[in-house]
Amino acid sequence: MLTIDAQRFMRRHESLAKWGATGKGGVNRPALSADETGARRELLDWARTRGFAIYVDPIGNLFVRRRGRSATARPIRMGSHLDSQMPGGNYDGVYGVLAAFEVLETLEDNAVAFDAPLELVVWNNEEGCRFSPTTMGSAVHAGSLSLEQALSAVDSEGVTVGRALERSLDLLGSLTPIDLGSPCSGYIEAHIEQGPRLEALGLSVGVVSGIQGIAQFVFEVEGEEAHAGTTPRDQRKDALRGAINLVEDLALAIEHDDDVRFTVGKFEVAPGAINTVPAKVAFTVDLRHPDSEELARLVQVVLVACSSLRLRCRVHCRQILNSPPIQFDAAVTAVISESCAKAGIETMTLPSGATHDAKHMAELCPSGMIFIPCRDGISHSDREHASAPDMIQGANILLASIVRLADLTRVGTSDQKHERV
Amino acid sequence: MLTIDAQRFMRRHESLAKWGATGKGGVNRPALSADETGARRELLDWARTRGFAIYVDPIGNLFVRRRGRSATARPIRMGSHLDSQMPGGNYDGVYGVLAAFEVLETLEDNAVAFDAPLELVVWNNEEGCRFSPTTMGSAVHAGSLSLEQALSAVDSEGVTVGRALERSLDLLGSLTPIDLGSPCSGYIEAHIEQGPRLEALGLSVGVVSGIQGIAQFVFEVEGEEAHAGTTPRDQRKDALRGAINLVEDLALAIEHDDDVRFTVGKFEVAPGAINTVPAKVAFTVDLRHPDSEELARLVQVVLVACSSLRLRCRVHCRQILNSPPIQFDAAVTAVISESCAKAGIETMTLPSGATHDAKHMAELCPSGMIFIPCRDGISHSDREHASAPDMIQGANILLASIVRLADLTRVGTSDQKHERV
Repeated sequence: MLTIDAQRFMRRHESLAKWGATGKGGVNRPALSADETGARRELLDWARTRGFAIYVDPIGNLFVRRRGRSATARPIRMGSHLDSQMPGGNYDGVYGVLAAFEVLETLEDNAVAFDAPLELVVWNNEEGCRFSPTTMGSAVHAGSLSLEQALSAVDSEGVTVGRALERSLDLLGSLTPIDLGSPCSGYIEAHIEQGPRLEALGLSVGVVSGIQGIAQFVFEVEGEEAHAGTTPRDQRKDALRGAINLVEDLALAIEHDDDVRFTVGKFEVAPGAINTVPAKVAFTVDLRHPDSEELARLVQVVLVACSSLRLRCRVHCRQILNSPPIQFDAAVTAVISESCAKAGIETMTLPSGATHDAKHMAELCPSGMIFIPCRDGISHSDREHASAPDMIQGANILLASIVRLADLTRVGTSDQKHERV
Repeated sequence: MLTIDAQRFMRRHESLAKWGATGKGGVNRPALSADETGARRELLDWARTRGFAIYVDPIGNLFVRRRGRSATARPIRMGSHLDSQMPGGNYDGVYGVLAAFEVLETLEDNAVAFDAPLELVVWNNEEGCRFSPTTMGSAVHAGSLSLEQALSAVDSEGVTVGRALERSLDLLGSLTPIDLGSPCSGYIEAHIEQGPRLEALGLSVGVVSGIQGIAQFVFEVEGEEAHAGTTPRDQRKDALRGAINLVEDLALAIEHDDDVRFTVGKFEVAPGAINTVPAKVAFTVDLRHPDSEELARLVQVVLVACSSLRLRCRVHCRQILNSPPIQFDAAVTAVISESCAKAGIETMTLPSGATHDAKHMAELCPSGMIFIPCRDGISHSDREHASAPDMIQGANILLASIVRLADLTRVGTSDQKHERV
């Protein structure tokens, strides 16, 4: 069985970690910054050394191609991103980029030939912290965000994506243009889980079933300010107690299965004086579920609660986000699971709580994701950490899965087989 | 039956309302301000016109005396305060001062003679909003706060009570000094309820049984920040949910009878981001009960909860205030109740939720309070309002009660009778 060059892989990881290093284990490498551009340039230098072709699309996504035998076969893609939160960890994004690059190199080392070209995509601005929105590059490539809107997004200093991209590309050497929405026959992204489930079960690889849907709400509970000493309970309109009552009832109605994520993250109480019954509470609900129908049902549960009266307090709410879940392609997911089985690795299938570029790629072609555990489930932090054995294991599963996909999409196999992927 | 001059009483109320008038129904008349001094001066001018003697103690409490027949009898006192919150209402304090002054005038009008002198006390700095603490004047007079400490308290602009008092007294004309802790044989304070109970029952007068005790606590619930999308419920340490759980359990354990007041007024959540499981909540508990033993028991309930673990979050708390309840003198309370009965007025006995100067006077002599309703229970606000009929009814009950107290404390009656009061 083909395996990656683990030493090279870890060496490359260490090398890219210098770009924007915080000195505390993480990196501060916002999209299109000098440091991200440095990391991109180093990666492209390695790619050029290997003789891979390099393409760029109009939103700055980079495509590193290992050519296939067929001139007409659509590429199979892997990828992730090199930008980070400000600051972020040294695994989020970069892990998937390097795992994919290692797959290309391993195949090259072993002279394994496929009909289809294989591509690593380095997506632009996945984090969305310097320029909004998140997963900008993949959203534009897949057509769910307009190029114009993306290029005109500005950072906190008024610099547009268009201008920052121009400056960044100037430093990357010669690149061949490629269109947005370019055809492909499959996509797999490797990523750290950013949650604690794999670690808790002692698994080194997880098969991602999809990206859960998110609905977000803002609630306002309005009561009446009153003197804490003089106002009897039955005459209070205590907004805090009303809000607490509402949160408890929502939790009771919503937290039925282990897949639901129900979070009240913001909870602001006014006037907030020790001897005054609160008059107003504003709180948020972040609700996620991998199943589309179940999420829709839970959204209804929340919306019904919106206009209820709570302990004589009025309740208002509005939904501020509605992003339905996606399911990854069953055939791609099966390929990843089978790769784990063949390698004798125990695994689990789990939805992604966070969003990823794979969400947009799933609109373009059969897609899937591989998760590896990260310590304590921590991400977007200097404390983010994945172990070398898990990183290597995940890259080997990516390699095996891509090889299987490439076999399945051989030119000359039946269209049916092709479609299956 | 003797009754007050209702027109004069309401006219005097209207006249004092100009000092610090906000134009929206309330007054902004902090202790020892030019406006409070103006109100005090106007009252003293009326007193001088009536030939009443005027005394001042070292902390600036004013004593307006209608002399008695006996040179040795201890005075019977009434009173309240002329300072307000910033801004406050036009009834809190001033109502009790004017009701007491009207009692003195009515007795003078009708040439009713008693052995004991009768005094109106205008307490200095009851509100405690310009200078801390609250009920400063009565606390110093009764000996529970040192004169030095009170005189050196500063307002937000660095002015001491001592300096402000000096300037204020300069404007009040000639005043005779009186000692702190001067002997007296009874005290009754009329005040608006500052709560909704009398209004709810349609009563115009309430007999105050005592001033409830207060215990205050600060809680901190510590969990762990986590990603709202990726962290499963059973691996969260959600400080908000932990705090909510704790508040609900405290309420369940504490809110057993209608006399308890349990308020969570401050509730601060960190980091407070829509997609982050909260790591920390700091909240306050304000706990009040008129019964000393029950309050002590409830404090234990809270303290036991302090070191509990809530949904995997650690709980810390500390008690920041412990002020036991007081019971007013049974004989004084009976005198007020009997005065209501004789006047054919339905009444109720209720504890005071807020603190008053009567709390300190209860240390010096048999004391009691009369409440009148205020609209919607609102106080410390431009919206504070008491109706003229209720104000007049309350003043008449004060008059009847003081007459009864004066009768009971006649010189030459048995010591036993004297002691009963």
